[in-house]
Amino acid sequence: MSQMSFSISETDGPARRGRLDTAHGAIDTPAFMPVGTAATVKAMTPGAVAQTGAQILLGNTYHLMLRPGAERIDRLGGLHRFMNWPGPILTDSGGFQVMSLAEMRKITEEGVRFRSHIDGSYHTLTPERSIEIQHLLDATITMAFDECTPYPATEKETDVSMRLSMRWAGRSKDAFKPRPGYGLFGIVQGGVFEDLRHASVEALTEIGFDGYAIGGLAVGEGQELMFQTLDFTTPVMPQDRPRYLMGVGKPDDIVGAVRRGVDMFDCVLPTRSGRNGQAWTPRGPANLRNARHADDHRPLDETCPCPACSDYSRAYLHHLIKAGEILGMMLVTWHNLTYYQRLMAGLRGAIETGSLDDFTDAFHQRRAEGDIPPL
Amino acid sequence: MSQMSFSISETDGPARRGRLDTAHGAIDTPAFMPVGTAATVKAMTPGAVAQTGAQILLGNTYHLMLRPGAERIDRLGGLHRFMNWPGPILTDSGGFQVMSLAEMRKITEEGVRFRSHIDGSYHTLTPERSIEIQHLLDATITMAFDECTPYPATEKETDVSMRLSMRWAGRSKDAFKPRPGYGLFGIVQGGVFEDLRHASVEALTEIGFDGYAIGGLAVGEGQELMFQTLDFTTPVMPQDRPRYLMGVGKPDDIVGAVRRGVDMFDCVLPTRSGRNGQAWTPRGPANLRNARHADDHRPLDETCPCPACSDYSRAYLHHLIKAGEILGMMLVTWHNLTYYQRLMAGLRGAIETGSLDDFTDAFHQRRAEGDIPPL
Repeated sequence: MSQMSFSISETDGPARRGRLDTAHGAIDTPAFMPVGTAATVKAMTPGAVAQTGAQILLGNTYHLMLRPGAERIDRLGGLHRFMNWPGPILTDSGGFQVMSLAEMRKITEEGVRFRSHIDGSYHTLTPERSIEIQHLLDATITMAFDECTPYPATEKETDVSMRLSMRWAGRSKDAFKPRPGYGLFGIVQGGVFEDLRHASVEALTEIGFDGYAIGGLAVGEGQELMFQTLDFTTPVMPQDRPRYLMGVGKPDDIVGAVRRGVDMFDCVLPTRSGRNGQAWTPRGPANLRNARHADDHRPLDETCPCPACSDYSRAYLHHLIKAGEILGMMLVTWHNLTYYQRLMAGLRGAIETGSLDDFTDAFHQRRAEGDIPPL
Repeated sequence: MSQMSFSISETDGPARRGRLDTAHGAIDTPAFMPVGTAATVKAMTPGAVAQTGAQILLGNTYHLMLRPGAERIDRLGGLHRFMNWPGPILTDSGGFQVMSLAEMRKITEEGVRFRSHIDGSYHTLTPERSIEIQHLLDATITMAFDECTPYPATEKETDVSMRLSMRWAGRSKDAFKPRPGYGLFGIVQGGVFEDLRHASVEALTEIGFDGYAIGGLAVGEGQELMFQTLDFTTPVMPQDRPRYLMGVGKPDDIVGAVRRGVDMFDCVLPTRSGRNGQAWTPRGPANLRNARHADDHRPLDETCPCPACSDYSRAYLHHLIKAGEILGMMLVTWHNLTYYQRLMAGLRGAIETGSLDDFTDAFHQRRAEGDIPPL
């Protein structure tokens, strides 16, 4: 019996329109979660993030355990209060960042020992410690601790890695202290191999989780292989629990994954590319650094209600990005997060009305047109 | 007859409570103008700047002529529209930045030839071109083009420099096209020399301006010499026109200058120090980078209504600054600008009630207490 209610109101093919009720509020799915790595969605106030339509943020166990420290955040009242975000927060387990950021990793059955990329200090993450940290952070949704399988990897390597993650998933479940409105998600591994993905789903459902994430994708395999993997993975996942595709992705990745039955997403793309002056619109990406925008009095996206599009010209955004001004990073991030949330709202509406095919066609058609021609 | 109405409602000793009416709105004086160098108050939206209580911004001719270019801003509808700040904007003349930022300056009677610090390109600023640029920017208040006298300088050097600035002031006046609600300010030079300051005021009043700035201070002479210079300068300046002390300053500089009859100020201090994690409060400066704040759940300043103080702890601000997060720069800048505007509101209220001495005593007493003790 889950402590976290998830209900599906409509479906359109494999796509699902759902609602996840948590201790910190409801999440309409399919949902995109902005990444708040170090207890802040970079260059945004929490109020601005909420204005974009976001209902849940992601926080990073690895970053927060190193700085400012999980025990400190607990003493200060938990992550919601610390960062002034009263809504739901999902924390990752630290497994992915340990592999991508930390130095001198040593993986054993027990867990991972590593050196901080900030100050070189030594730390150990185990399933038990990862869950403890996420409890200290007061995470609404806690992720099981797993090993992020390197890509590319042979089927044998992927199998060994997945089996370790499944044992860690069981230890994560044992360490997790259930509370009403709080949940624990397991992470399906197994790379691009159908048998391994199926075995992973089986192992996780045997343990039992409040939701099921799909890990180990968007690591370089490409969209086609990612979609193929989803095609044979989501059908065997529990129907009545939310599905979360970790670290994905570009807008067209998200549309394709929603069509394959995924409910939740997170990605640094809208925030990171926003800081670099890359804007996402219904017509695809636009590089505001490009000189074509220097004299363009038009808004970035005339259909967008965000401040960057309502109050400023492309010329101004170009100027700010060229000059390295913080306001440029703020505004383009704000726009990108608004675009992502509007995309999710569009997908939810299309599933509600059974028009996901039409929505998808229109999505790809607008993108094929490309950015508006220069003046 | 000035195109810009200035009225003084109360005085308290030399201090004046005034109101300057412009084409873009009224400015209550004494006023502090946040600096929006490159068409943005760094790390702030214009809406947030307005929320702090600011009624007028400063823009930089030097920066804007180089990037994005004055003619471009004119084509895009002027600086107000470009940066989405409908209120009054004062632009400096470029004279100060040419001396402090540009490379290979060559000063002649005609003007200054220099190389851009951005791309090394050659440019010339003359009184006529500076005024033309400020017209293209649609500046509410245009500053006369002057030479910023180096400090230290001998009386002879200061005299020669001041006389050049006075000739340039006359050419600036000739080049300025008056419009209702728009104004041109002259700049008093003469370093720390009483005779030269008096001669400069005389030369400028002979030409006639809508307001009178005091230039060449806050360049390293120290507060005592700055106040001494004000003591013999403001009494001979026109009583019925606003007085603007350029580039000043720290809160105690401002309090002392208001007491000496200054009406307007600008300084990068609240924004620049905000980005470095230095916060200004009634108890003086607080360095949020300091580890003493790491576990401090209290607000930066419990009397302050800004978001940094209302929504977050010192511990969180410390974390953001240590982690180099943009939100840290945003919040501390927001707080500092709020503090400066509250200081100005306090000064205005004290002049209105004839209690400027009491206000000043309380100001210095709170500062002497220093920041709140660590927990």
